[in-house]
Formats: sequence, C-alpha cells, structure tokens
Amino acid sequence: MHVDLGSSLDATPGVSRESLERLDGQVATAHERIETGRDNHEHGYEALNLPSTVDLDAIRTAVAPFDDAAAVLTVGIGGSALGAATFADALAGPNDPDAYFLDNVDPEHVSRLLDALPLDRTVVNVVSRSGTTAETLANFLVVRDAMADADVDWTDRTFVTTGESGNLRSLAEKHDLPSLSVPDGVPGRFSALSTVGLAVAAIQGHDLEAIRAGAADAADGLSGSLFETPAYAYGATTYALAGRGAVTNAVMPYAERLETFAEWFAQLWAESLGKDGLGQTPARALGATDQHSQLQLYRAGPRDKLVTLVRPRDYADRTIPETDLDGLSYLGGSSLGDLLDAEFEATEASLVESGVPAVRVEIDAVDERSLGSLLYEMEAACVLYGELAAVSTFTQPAVEWGKNAARGLLGGGDFEEADAVDERTSLVVE
Amino acid sequence: MHVDLGSSLDATPGVSRESLERLDGQVATAHERIETGRDNHEHGYEALNLPSTVDLDAIRTAVAPFDDAAAVLTVGIGGSALGAATFADALAGPNDPDAYFLDNVDPEHVSRLLDALPLDRTVVNVVSRSGTTAETLANFLVVRDAMADADVDWTDRTFVTTGESGNLRSLAEKHDLPSLSVPDGVPGRFSALSTVGLAVAAIQGHDLEAIRAGAADAADGLSGSLFETPAYAYGATTYALAGRGAVTNAVMPYAERLETFAEWFAQLWAESLGKDGLGQTPARALGATDQHSQLQLYRAGPRDKLVTLVRPRDYADRTIPETDLDGLSYLGGSSLGDLLDAEFEATEASLVESGVPAVRVEIDAVDERSLGSLLYEMEAACVLYGELAAVSTFTQPAVEWGKNAARGLLGGGDFEEADAVDERTSLVVE
Repeated sequence: MHVDLGSSLDATPGVSRESLERLDGQVATAHERIETGRDNHEHGYEALNLPSTVDLDAIRTAVAPFDDAAAVLTVGIGGSALGAATFADALAGPNDPDAYFLDNVDPEHVSRLLDALPLDRTVVNVVSRSGTTAETLANFLVVRDAMADADVDWTDRTFVTTGESGNLRSLAEKHDLPSLSVPDGVPGRFSALSTVGLAVAAIQGHDLEAIRAGAADAADGLSGSLFETPAYAYGATTYALAGRGAVTNAVMPYAERLETFAEWFAQLWAESLGKDGLGQTPARALGATDQHSQLQLYRAGPRDKLVTLVRPRDYADRTIPETDLDGLSYLGGSSLGDLLDAEFEATEASLVESGVPAVRVEIDAVDERSLGSLLYEMEAACVLYGELAAVSTFTQPAVEWGKNAARGLLGGGDFEEADAVDERTSLVVE
Repeated sequence: MHVDLGSSLDATPGVSRESLERLDGQVATAHERIETGRDNHEHGYEALNLPSTVDLDAIRTAVAPFDDAAAVLTVGIGGSALGAATFADALAGPNDPDAYFLDNVDPEHVSRLLDALPLDRTVVNVVSRSGTTAETLANFLVVRDAMADADVDWTDRTFVTTGESGNLRSLAEKHDLPSLSVPDGVPGRFSALSTVGLAVAAIQGHDLEAIRAGAADAADGLSGSLFETPAYAYGATTYALAGRGAVTNAVMPYAERLETFAEWFAQLWAESLGKDGLGQTPARALGATDQHSQLQLYRAGPRDKLVTLVRPRDYADRTIPETDLDGLSYLGGSSLGDLLDAEFEATEASLVESGVPAVRVEIDAVDERSLGSLLYEMEAACVLYGELAAVSTFTQPAVEWGKNAARGLLGGGDFEEADAVDERTSLVVE
C-alpha cells in the first residue's frame, strides 16, 4: 500500500514530522521485537509468517470436491468469517459461486438465507478453531437439519476448518469430511491470509498465489523505520494521533468493494488494541456516500478523530453521458471515476482545511495481489501499534465474561456471570 | 419504543437518576421550544409534523403505474436513500419487488448493478430536493443511458421525488413523469416518514398507514418529561452521557433487519449534532456478530462510549436441533432466538460489570407500526439533544466546502476551495 501522512501533520490533533522522527527509534525497537516473535513462532507474531507457511495446496485439495458449487456458505463468526468475506466482496466476479456468511444467530435471517439457497449445490464451510463457538455450532446444527429436510446429504456438501482436536475435528474424521487446519499461533482476526480466509477464495476461483505474493512482498518490505515501511508509517501515525487525542479512526474506503475490508479492519483494530483503557475506536464509513452522513461531524464535531481515506488507483471507469440539464453540463463527458476521485480529494482537503487529521492509503487496484499486501500491512500496522502502546495485542480477555453469562443463561453450566444478569437495575420509560 | 436507562445509571461515564431529574427541567423547556417550532411549521421542526401532513394517497398515485415492477432502484444519496433503505431492509418479504439503492458513484458498483437488473421491469426513483446533487444526477444520467442501450423507454419507468422547481421538476413536467414533492421544512435526514422514505415501501406493498399510525402514536406521546417520553429519555440520556465523556454512541441492533436502521441513525445523529465542536460519534455495530469484533474494545478500551442495544421483542424463531456433540447439548432443543436473547442480556450485563453505560431500546416487532414509532422517536430524541446542546440541529454547513472543491476540480466553476486541494502537503511512504 501507499501511505501519505501529509494531511495529518498540521492538524489538531496532529503529529509533526519531528515527532515522527523521534518516534522512529521506538519503531526500530518494536520492529526488532516483532522479528524476534516471528523467528520464534510466538503466539500472534506467527500470523506475520503466513506468507511463507500457508499451504495453498492443502486448501485446493480440501475444496476440490466442490468444483460444481453454485454457492459457498461459511458458518463462522468474527475472525472466522471477516477475512473470507473481505476477499469475497472485494473480488466478486459475475460468474463466481456466490459467497454467503452465517456470522450471526438471528433466526429470521438464518431462515431467509436457507430458504433462498440451492442447498444441493451449496458448499458449507464450518469454521471454528475450538469447535465449540456457540453461534457457529448452533448455526451448523440448523444448516445440517435444513439439508436433511431438503434431502441433501450434508456429508457430501460440508468441509470444516478447525483446530487439531475438538468437536469439528472429530466430526470430520467420523464422516470423512474434507478439512483444513486453523494454524497454531494465529488469532482469528489475523487469519485472513491462512486456510481460514482463503478457502472461500479458492472455491470462487480467485488467485491464491497472487494473494500470497502480495503478502510476501509486504513481509519482505518490513524494516526498522516508519519512513521506509508503509505498514509502520500507518501504525506509528495512528498510535501517535491516538495519544494526541484522536480516539476514533474513521476508515473510509472510496470503493464499494472495500466496504467489508473496513469491517475486517474494525475487528483487527478494536479487538487487538482495545485494552488497558487504551485503543482507538474504528468507525466504518464509505466514500463518497458518507460525505452526506458523517462528514459534517468529522469536520465540525469534537477534535477526537482521524480519518483514513482508502482508494484503489486503478479501476474500471464509466462515462457520464453529456447532458443539457441546467447547471450539470460540467458532469457530462466526465466519468463516475472522475467524480469519485474529485470527491476523495475534496474531502481530504476539506478535512485539512478544518484541521482534522487524515491519512491517505492507496492500493494499486482491488485485485488479489494488492489485497494480499493491504491485509498483511494492516496486520503489521496493528502489531506495531500494539508494541508501541505496550498492550497484549493478540488476546481478547474482555469477551469471556459475556460468553460465560450467555452460556449460563442457556443452562449450559453454573456460571456466576449469569447471576449478574438478573441483578441489573431497570429504569424503564415507555 | 421502550427505553431502559438502568444500565447507564452507575456507569463511568454515567448519569445518576438525580442528574436526570435535574435535567428534566431543561427537557420541559426544550419540549416547549419543539412544540412551538411544530406549531409554526419552522424549518426542521416541521419533520415532527409528518404523521399529520404526509399525503399517502399522493404516494400511492405516483407509484401506481409501476405495479408490475420486479425491482425498484432508488437513485439518491444520504437522506434521499437511507430512510427508504431502512424500511426496505427491515420489512423485506420474499415476494416483494427487490429494492436497490444507487447512493454512491463507484463506477464498478454502478456497472455491476445495472448489468444485473432487469431494466425493463425496474422502476427508477430519482430523489434530490435541489435536482443538482452531483452524485445523484450523474448516476441518473448513467441509468438513463443504460436503459436506452437496453431499448427501455426511461420515461415509462421513472418517477422523481424533488422540490417544487429545478432540473428534476422540469424533467418531470417535460416528460409527464409521475412525481412526488419533497416536503418543505424537512431536512433529508428527517424525511424517512415523508414521500422520500415511503415511496419504495409503497411499491414493495408495505402498509403505509401502519407506518404513519406508529409515528402518530409517538407524536401524541411527546410530553414535557423524559420520564414519560421514551424519545426524550433517549435524547436526554445520550446528551447527558456525551457531556460526561461518552463521545461515541455504539448502536448495536440484535436483528439483521435493523442493520440499515443503524446507518440511518448514524446520519441523523452525526449530521444533526456534529457541530460547534460538539456531537457524539455514532459507531455502527450488529449483535451478536460484533461481540466477536467490537466488544473487547467497548469493555476494556477508553471510557468514552455509550452502547445502545436495540432489539425486537417478537420475531419468528427457529429451533436448534438436539445434538450429542461434545459440550453442546445445552444448545439442542433451545432456539436461535433464545441464544440471541441470552447474548443480548449477557452483553448488556458485561458492559455493566465493566462500568460501561448501556441503554436498552426495544420495539414490539420489526413491523411497519413499530418502525414508524422508532424512526419518529429517534428523530425526536435527536431534536431534543440538539435543543439541550443548543446547536443548529437542522443544518449541515460543514459539507459545503467539499462540495465546492469537488465541483471546482471537475471544471464546474471557479471555486477557491479547489485550489486548496493542489496545495496539500505530502509525506509519502511506499
């Protein structure tokens, strides 16, 4: 990716070039720590080795039985869905098998989707490292039941992506299902470039080698200076701006194909960095649409934001026809891409004009190679930020409490967290 | 809607019952101001009169020629799309004409959509009050051209929703197109309950009378006390929490059908209240999915957030089949709805346990009547918040700068804002 920090230098909050130069010594130290973690295959850091460890042949072998698929349904939540969805939405072609994601347990949504899918030509990819994720396993049980009702043999249409042991591994062995292993040491939100994120892309016929090559390029480019490494430029600048008051990071791609990328980024950023009272809240936006929704707030609201503007440099454009409509002749003969680019640059300048920091992130195109680089570099940016902030980047301890409470409420064991639910205070207005 | 403030009382930041009681005097004054604005049909306040002013017959008449539609394509951006999209996504039935929205000028997205639509059975609804919104008019020119290429007479398949004069009004008169008027005094983001938001719902066969009845109930329920009016309970509490440090409002519906409602809310909140250095940043989330993405940050990150948990009380449930999978028998025989409700309550309790304020918003069901109430009440909540904060709720001055810059960049006139784009500072890392 190409990062331009210029619009964050003189903003409020802002970070000066001199501050970035001072910070670069910490970046060098953090880079050393990251390289040591990678060399020793430490938990989390191992994710940054995926370009050299991911086994693309294993993915192709696992999905080979499904070359007739009309649709692929991923049953997984959080990191088990968002990486695959990012690739699917970015790379979707008109003739690909459609990709769907059951990443929620809304009963109406599940029923609507199952009613609409051609189950006899749908591949089901169940993804859970532990094999016990409540939402994923509940949905899988429902999907299996719907297949039985439709006289489809689920064992012919299912493959699992899971750890070396547990429910799903046992199930795969019992029914001889194709299976993939979730790599050790790679947290879910860092698994886009592994079996977890790439199996759907394989079924859809996308170029896995190019994704890996893009990520490998990015890995090779990591150096000890933020001025030489786009990933570190982004991670160090967002870290510096957060410390200077930019508690929100509005990530605004100017490409519909990258809307899910912003969701993937939001999980990466929130779950990795939101701890010890620190962290930067990701706000998901979309250009140019959200200029008509969020821009008023960004420009004139509290000075607590950074806006990350993302766009591809190359894309298929479309001409705007000539028109004699009053006051609109300037649009005619131009293109939608010209308009979108003008809005991108105008929005960036309007943020600068009001003193709001912005970072420009560009990729060459929305294609496999650029996406491989982009995801790898945003992961590296996040790891660097975590090092600078001295937080535990690869854990998510704060979500356990609610899991225990929910399980207790459902009669799945005796959890004191469930008792707290009954003790809550009410003040109802209706 | 039913609002429960209990989980925001003892939080950090939090608001005590005593503080709310002290604030209630200001609520009474603000309510007087709102009622005066409504009585005098003042700009903005007039939106709260829509339940008695909207002309449902005019909507039905305008869309009557299109009762054969397979799809309805709205060409509009911001408030010209989000209200209609909220109803469409919330109320979608399997046999409705499909609703699509061209609310962005991404050329690839526009081309993909136009390639996929059956243009000879698609109704096009062009929505722009001024008739000069660059994105909307550019897209309309492209759509018209695509229809010509497909040998479809666009004048047979188009209706416009616009002001009393301007490009689109002239076009409607010239070609005798069905048309609707954008009501005076109603800003786009407050227009969901008007012609702007309801025309697509009419084409899809939804019950406009019920939407209006729900909104009318809510209008009748406005009183001078936050303890008697759910809309004011929500508006006053969010205002108080923002002042006490909750600069982000994460709106998290536990229903896929309400995901677009969260987008609509985000525009309402950001564009109305984001001014004078004030305002609360809306973060769009979705339960239960974002428990696996954002909850770690909400619980353990900076103490600068309020979480608004939204759910319907009634919905079509789906049983989870019995299972002998290891450790999952507790799910079998339960339902997806039980699981989702347990997660809702567990998440709320987990926020309370970590001291993060939460507000519970419930509606009876995701149906026309409840949606009419919900949207009206959130608008009233927003207006109240604006009164308490003493901001200019109904304007959006900060977006003009960028519009001028973009227009200048495209050769649409001599705008000094465009010059600023060329003067920006760069610091590129690649």
